[in-house]
Amino acid sequence: MDPAEGRRILVAVDEGDESVHALRWCLTNFATRGDGELAPPDTILLLYVRPTPPTYSVLDASGYLFVNEATAAIDGYSRAVADAVVDKAQKLCALHSKENGEVKVKVDVKVAVGDARSVICDMVDKLGADVLVMGSHGYGFFKRALLGSVSDYCVRNANCPVLIVKLK
Amino acid sequence: MDPAEGRRILVAVDEGDESVHALRWCLTNFATRGDGELAPPDTILLLYVRPTPPTYSVLDASGYLFVNEATAAIDGYSRAVADAVVDKAQKLCALHSKENGEVKVKVDVKVAVGDARSVICDMVDKLGADVLVMGSHGYGFFKRALLGSVSDYCVRNANCPVLIVKLK
Repeated sequence: MDPAEGRRILVAVDEGDESVHALRWCLTNFATRGDGELAPPDTILLLYVRPTPPTYSVLDASGYLFVNEATAAIDGYSRAVADAVVDKAQKLCALHSKENGEVKVKVDVKVAVGDARSVICDMVDKLGADVLVMGSHGYGFFKRALLGSVSDYCVRNANCPVLIVKLK
Repeated sequence: MDPAEGRRILVAVDEGDESVHALRWCLTNFATRGDGELAPPDTILLLYVRPTPPTYSVLDASGYLFVNEATAAIDGYSRAVADAVVDKAQKLCALHSKENGEVKVKVDVKVAVGDARSVICDMVDKLGADVLVMGSHGYGFFKRALLGSVSDYCVRNANCPVLIVKLK
């Protein structure tokens, strides 16, 4: 990490309230509160991971046309969710910067597609994150029950310190 | 959290290199780097948890005297380890403050006795910690294999955000 550059804080966001809480906590308590040489502005890397679009083998009388339409509709919905999540997160960052006057936080948005667990850990490396911030649940209750939580995986596998923020 | 007071950062340390690494990372990247009103000095709460002294039922010809001596010896060793760990951690904090000139970090030391997992979570509440920092292993490989890691437990149960720092 280059101290003159500030920290690169990767915040994994999803559609849950907990990730909003984690981002807010990070902005209030973790991102640099001072300014100047001793405390250069941090960069918040907002990451939203869309699930891989499903491929369906359901056939109706009209054949593949229906399948394509369904897939496109699901994909479209997923993109809309991604836009909404990212928009909300960006507004939170902007609001925080405004409220804190002197506190400048750079924000960079990344939307990736795939399995959240591996994508988040890959992005830590690719983006050179100094720390990963995320909620403790995330990416759906059922997925968690089946696969183990995304945060558990990231705590074990991400190549940087991981800050887990719970919603009480 | 009172912004004028700075953050109360509870760092759980043990005899392993990973906890030294976690403390160093915390001092360098997390504890307030600026100074003044916008960034008041943080308080580092160094916590070392000694295991509960074992009670032995081994009897030799001289009976309980031996048992008492053994228990006292183990307890004495445990205290010596606690002193060494805390001393090392305090020196690291002092060195960091010196190197960074303007950066003042208040350090407070707590040594507790009991099961590390529950003691650390209890201390988060008792000390009013804003964040808990710890390594991902800690408190012995065998104990981890048997009981699950201390950090896993704290991520799930501590009533504050938890920052896990791994030694790569």
